[in-house]
Amino acid sequence: MITVLRLGHRRGRDDRISSHVGLTARQFGADKIIFSGEHDENMLESQQDIVDRWGGEFEITYREAYRPVITEFEGTRVHLTMYGESFRESDVLEQDIDDLLIVVGSQKVPRDIYEKVDYNLGVGHQPHSEVAALAVFLYECNGHQIPQSFDGADIEVIPSEQHKKTRRPD
Amino acid sequence: MITVLRLGHRRGRDDRISSHVGLTARQFGADKIIFSGEHDENMLESQQDIVDRWGGEFEITYREAYRPVITEFEGTRVHLTMYGESFRESDVLEQDIDDLLIVVGSQKVPRDIYEKVDYNLGVGHQPHSEVAALAVFLYECNGHQIPQSFDGADIEVIPSEQHKKTRRPD
Repeated sequence: MITVLRLGHRRGRDDRISSHVGLTARQFGADKIIFSGEHDENMLESQQDIVDRWGGEFEITYREAYRPVITEFEGTRVHLTMYGESFRESDVLEQDIDDLLIVVGSQKVPRDIYEKVDYNLGVGHQPHSEVAALAVFLYECNGHQIPQSFDGADIEVIPSEQHKKTRRPD
Repeated sequence: MITVLRLGHRRGRDDRISSHVGLTARQFGADKIIFSGEHDENMLESQQDIVDRWGGEFEITYREAYRPVITEFEGTRVHLTMYGESFRESDVLEQDIDDLLIVVGSQKVPRDIYEKVDYNLGVGHQPHSEVAALAVFLYECNGHQIPQSFDGADIEVIPSEQHKKTRRPD
């Protein structure tokens, strides 16, 4: 079970990045995302609509109080940050990643979060993107596999060399 | 030499996603990004400021006419799209990726682009994020190495288990 906790969402300014964080979590094998920051019903609903249409059990929720999400979590807690130690040099991928919380911030992550997690990990140490960091980290957690099949979908892509093909699964 | 071509930028709406695309390209080893769509001096300048501060030779440019960028490119041309064949099942990583153009779209990519490239490749076939797709694809192109050192930087991170540390390189 992999849970992503997205901190500090701001309505308007973060709509699209937060959507990318959520959909990236789903595509690369997370089971659940918890948004914190401003409560943004539109952003949550539009992601839920995509999940309903494309299938799977991915869960999208909102929690105003994010610190208890971290402190009460019983598995391995990872915060992705460019300031952290290199994830490739840490032993995190040897841990029980069946029970993993991945925290991703927006602009400023409060100082105490660095102390509440088990690992602060950099996926690169340059300024780039929490979407990119999350994607690569999940890709490694899942042994370079990218989930293809999502139960109960109304639509799925038929991969194609040159065309946009979709179908309704049986 | 890896070049990223970002199609269809829209001022305002795409500011942050386009910035994430550019910075992700730089972090994961691309040499250059070309933005197309609306000309957005602010977005270009704010990325250039980050590159100037954090170092390296990453080049950021704008081209209104993006089709010639693709048709005149002499190396391998890849378009990342959820509709494409799986990049892991294609032979693209066996090609000469020293000379690679990676095209990433925004909402709608014109039909003819699918025909002008050598490969349409999916990094997953679910709706997610061009930032995530670009990150994972570049990560594979670079054999799971993430560039750490950027020449001429004013600032660099000292990776740390629990602190935000930076220094001015020697």
